[in-house]
Amino acid sequence: MRLQPIYDIAEICAQKGINEAVLCPGSRCAPLISAFVTHPKINTRTFSDERSAGFVANGIAQVNPLPVVLVCTSGSAAYNFAPAIAEAFYQQIPIVVLTADRPKEWIDQLDGQTIRQEKIYGTHVKKYYELPQDYEHADTQWHINRCVNEAINLSNQYPKGPVHINIPLREPLYPLQGETIQFTTHLRIIESPESVTQLPPDFLSKLKSNFITSNKVLIVVGQQPFDSAFSSGLDTFSKQHHVPVIADVISNLHGLSHGITHADAMLGHCKPDNKKALQPELLITFGNSVISKNLKIFLRNYKPTIHWHIQPRGEIADTFQGLTSVISSTPMSFLQQFSEVVAKTGFEGQRRENYYRLWEAEEHRTVRAIKAFFATPQLNEFSLVNEILKNLPQPSHLHLSNSMPVRYANFIGLGDGKNDTEVFANRGTSGIDGCTSTAVGHALVANTPTLLITGDMAFFYDRNAFWHNYKLSHLRIVVLNNHGGAIFGMIDGPDQLQEADEYFITQQKLSARNVALEYGFDYLKLDSLKKLKNMLKDFFDFDGRTKILEIESTAKDAKIILDNFKKQIKSNYEA
Amino acid sequence: MRLQPIYDIAEICAQKGINEAVLCPGSRCAPLISAFVTHPKINTRTFSDERSAGFVANGIAQVNPLPVVLVCTSGSAAYNFAPAIAEAFYQQIPIVVLTADRPKEWIDQLDGQTIRQEKIYGTHVKKYYELPQDYEHADTQWHINRCVNEAINLSNQYPKGPVHINIPLREPLYPLQGETIQFTTHLRIIESPESVTQLPPDFLSKLKSNFITSNKVLIVVGQQPFDSAFSSGLDTFSKQHHVPVIADVISNLHGLSHGITHADAMLGHCKPDNKKALQPELLITFGNSVISKNLKIFLRNYKPTIHWHIQPRGEIADTFQGLTSVISSTPMSFLQQFSEVVAKTGFEGQRRENYYRLWEAEEHRTVRAIKAFFATPQLNEFSLVNEILKNLPQPSHLHLSNSMPVRYANFIGLGDGKNDTEVFANRGTSGIDGCTSTAVGHALVANTPTLLITGDMAFFYDRNAFWHNYKLSHLRIVVLNNHGGAIFGMIDGPDQLQEADEYFITQQKLSARNVALEYGFDYLKLDSLKKLKNMLKDFFDFDGRTKILEIESTAKDAKIILDNFKKQIKSNYEA
Repeated sequence: MRLQPIYDIAEICAQKGINEAVLCPGSRCAPLISAFVTHPKINTRTFSDERSAGFVANGIAQVNPLPVVLVCTSGSAAYNFAPAIAEAFYQQIPIVVLTADRPKEWIDQLDGQTIRQEKIYGTHVKKYYELPQDYEHADTQWHINRCVNEAINLSNQYPKGPVHINIPLREPLYPLQGETIQFTTHLRIIESPESVTQLPPDFLSKLKSNFITSNKVLIVVGQQPFDSAFSSGLDTFSKQHHVPVIADVISNLHGLSHGITHADAMLGHCKPDNKKALQPELLITFGNSVISKNLKIFLRNYKPTIHWHIQPRGEIADTFQGLTSVISSTPMSFLQQFSEVVAKTGFEGQRRENYYRLWEAEEHRTVRAIKAFFATPQLNEFSLVNEILKNLPQPSHLHLSNSMPVRYANFIGLGDGKNDTEVFANRGTSGIDGCTSTAVGHALVANTPTLLITGDMAFFYDRNAFWHNYKLSHLRIVVLNNHGGAIFGMIDGPDQLQEADEYFITQQKLSARNVALEYGFDYLKLDSLKKLKNMLKDFFDFDGRTKILEIESTAKDAKIILDNFKKQIKSNYEA
Repeated sequence: MRLQPIYDIAEICAQKGINEAVLCPGSRCAPLISAFVTHPKINTRTFSDERSAGFVANGIAQVNPLPVVLVCTSGSAAYNFAPAIAEAFYQQIPIVVLTADRPKEWIDQLDGQTIRQEKIYGTHVKKYYELPQDYEHADTQWHINRCVNEAINLSNQYPKGPVHINIPLREPLYPLQGETIQFTTHLRIIESPESVTQLPPDFLSKLKSNFITSNKVLIVVGQQPFDSAFSSGLDTFSKQHHVPVIADVISNLHGLSHGITHADAMLGHCKPDNKKALQPELLITFGNSVISKNLKIFLRNYKPTIHWHIQPRGEIADTFQGLTSVISSTPMSFLQQFSEVVAKTGFEGQRRENYYRLWEAEEHRTVRAIKAFFATPQLNEFSLVNEILKNLPQPSHLHLSNSMPVRYANFIGLGDGKNDTEVFANRGTSGIDGCTSTAVGHALVANTPTLLITGDMAFFYDRNAFWHNYKLSHLRIVVLNNHGGAIFGMIDGPDQLQEADEYFITQQKLSARNVALEYGFDYLKLDSLKKLKNMLKDFFDFDGRTKILEIESTAKDAKIILDNFKKQIKSNYEA
């Protein structure tokens, strides 16, 4: 059949192990849709809003160890994928984007659903491929095979990320009467497993000697997927050498026995003297972005002498403005190469421990303040997040939307006994545009309870996350509805402006009740403290129903609560 | 004040006559928001979903004679504008996009809401500008002034379109305590009015002689804004020279006394003999895209010897594959330059008239068939469109969503007495992603009844069109809810596929009732023919309420009705 090389894209994907495809219907993409739907080894789901579909694919890829295929038709459909693709790029999620296109000669000829799709995602994909539109010449078939193989390999190599294959397709777009889609056997597959890299021995020796001579060593871990081996390796390393580890909630290091998980709350208020004492000599970082702006400012103002960032490959960020060594290694392999370094003893060992105890003391002080703050029973969105985190089922997947929920959770921390919680947040671009769809994608393929804590802006922005026909039995959604973009009132600045109310604290009137009604979800409205206990029990009863728990307030009230919280933390340092 | 050159962007806009700005709240864009909100001469409105906001700006710009400013914060927010910007580019709508950005040095440093915004809209903007991020040097202020002046001029020159100014902004982003935003007086403004172009006399003579020697002259007009002077000039020209004018519903030529408005329905079914007779010798085209695929195929298969396309400037499409002369002139000036050409008489004049009568006969035949089809009272989405068009208030603005509504309306035509109806449709990219938001933007600034006829896919895709706090008193929405992407069943191909039901005829279960409930709109459900008359009366009562009229069916039923319609047209040619 004329379109055989196109149908075979599905076969190459399947042979490379891909088993999930997210499809957005359309006419031009019919050959792709048909191929993936027909393929016995690939699960397919269809979504109508491409913006949401892109994030759904991201959510699926967070669970799945392999790239997820994302298909759309020609025209502005492709542009609607862009927010999700930028997020996938910065969050290093492997997505193989297949956009159908008109044949080249029809671009800008006033045909419908035709835009300039070449390199449409700019540098937010690892690579752009353009497939040929005619397949008569044998080389074109080799070209398609090579591009698809290469794109899948590239998407799945560190740093993982999206790749874009643009596919011009000629009519007729459907198999002729009597034809059925079949896949070519013995297609060429190019394998490309990741190699293990070794640091140059001289360099490693220098690192070790730097490490031994530094008394104040601090580890900071940014966003990274849950990895119990790394978590336990890091725990051992931290205890052995008395190195404090600052772990944001999105670092997924809830398993650390002595992690510093409240750096954001503490560093916003502790005094210059404390900060001076906390300044590291050697900073070691792993992972991607950290949430805490206070932590970033602290490390930029109290710079380490040496800063190592551990990352196997790819572009390096100098987040703290003090980077001195880029260490091309996986975090695990780095820890292993340091395993034979003997812990310091005596006076030197004591100085290490002193530094460690300093961070530990700050952590304890902050934890006490937070406990004190929540000791009084109260009904507000912040305390609800606290209750939710305390009652998280184990195991569970926790999605935190931008902007306030991820900050709330990072202020509070997961607490003990939450080792089996994996935390997700769209911190690649920190947008609110696809937080719900990402959680939905996740819930579609996971058998684990999936919980989304979201603000109202993120929730209604992305309400088309539910506009499909698939069940979301494991999904639980907490909506913190303060009827506006409260974050603009919570950061310094906008609240001093006269225009704040209309233009910064966006007001919106919707309630999640209607969304629940529309999609047949259970709806729980938390409007009294007395209801809390039973409501949480009901909410966390996994009976096959999708459930939304909503608390309503105002942006102003939410700001007052957070101000009080900050005062409590601050008062710690004034006693 | 440090940010004075940024605040003054609003002043330059105002002095250039811009009076509408669409703002999407955020933190990084605060200086821009503050400036536009503070400016006394600019109306501002705020929207939370940037995808919708982009299309709202397009809708405002369709009413407003001047560019509309569109502002967002940094990060994926900017990408959410992309679908609307591509539409504005191809529909030639003047939009000045201002995206706030982080300072350059913070790109890719893992800060939140930071992506690679440089040239993010590719070639879908007329030009990309990057403003400086420091303003100490006097040249930077000149640079900002020049770029903003140039961008506005460019956006507003033929072919109008979007321009993108990316604006890196340093903290602090808010005026200091006690500071208030003021605008610089005597800012430099660069004016750049459009010049009138004259065709070279030799070329004009050649055109006239070609025109005189061609007996079968056909005019085809694509999408263009309502222009009563052009419409009446074209009417005179057409009658004087017996030149038939094919006018799609989006050509806004409802004022023509003998326009061929049913080319799509007729050319899908008339026989090769008829087509041969209808083949033009000279084809003259104006405007942008035509809806009718049948018309395109006809003109590609029955090519004219000569094809003139009249367009003042810009890229030229060769839609019918037979273009021979690009005539750089405005349509009006072209008609004027032909005004002294004397109509042919005698035998030659008779041949012109014969050709004209041929088209007229086909038009009448099709109109009769359509009238016969709708003569039987029936209750379905197609007949509802017919009733709505018959009862259109005058004057009115009619928005037709992709995909079926614009086709339905083009099949039926507006009919007589609808000269004061201006028709809009997102036929730049033909997406369903912003049809509602475009109509909403339009309704926000127009004092004329604004009617949107939409399918359910377009309607729910873009439901955030209503997620704001502004009244839409003049807006009426007809939702043709067949619970799926019926168009995929209506074009040839997908219905032969086994997978059609799940993967092509996307099924969706929502009803517009919930949207009406959520936003406090009146909801009218048309479920019986008896209700129709009173319901239309109620629907077209402009009492200050927003109203939705919904008819529900299935994709299958909608297809059967359209098949019957096509049979009726076809039977014309078989009698």
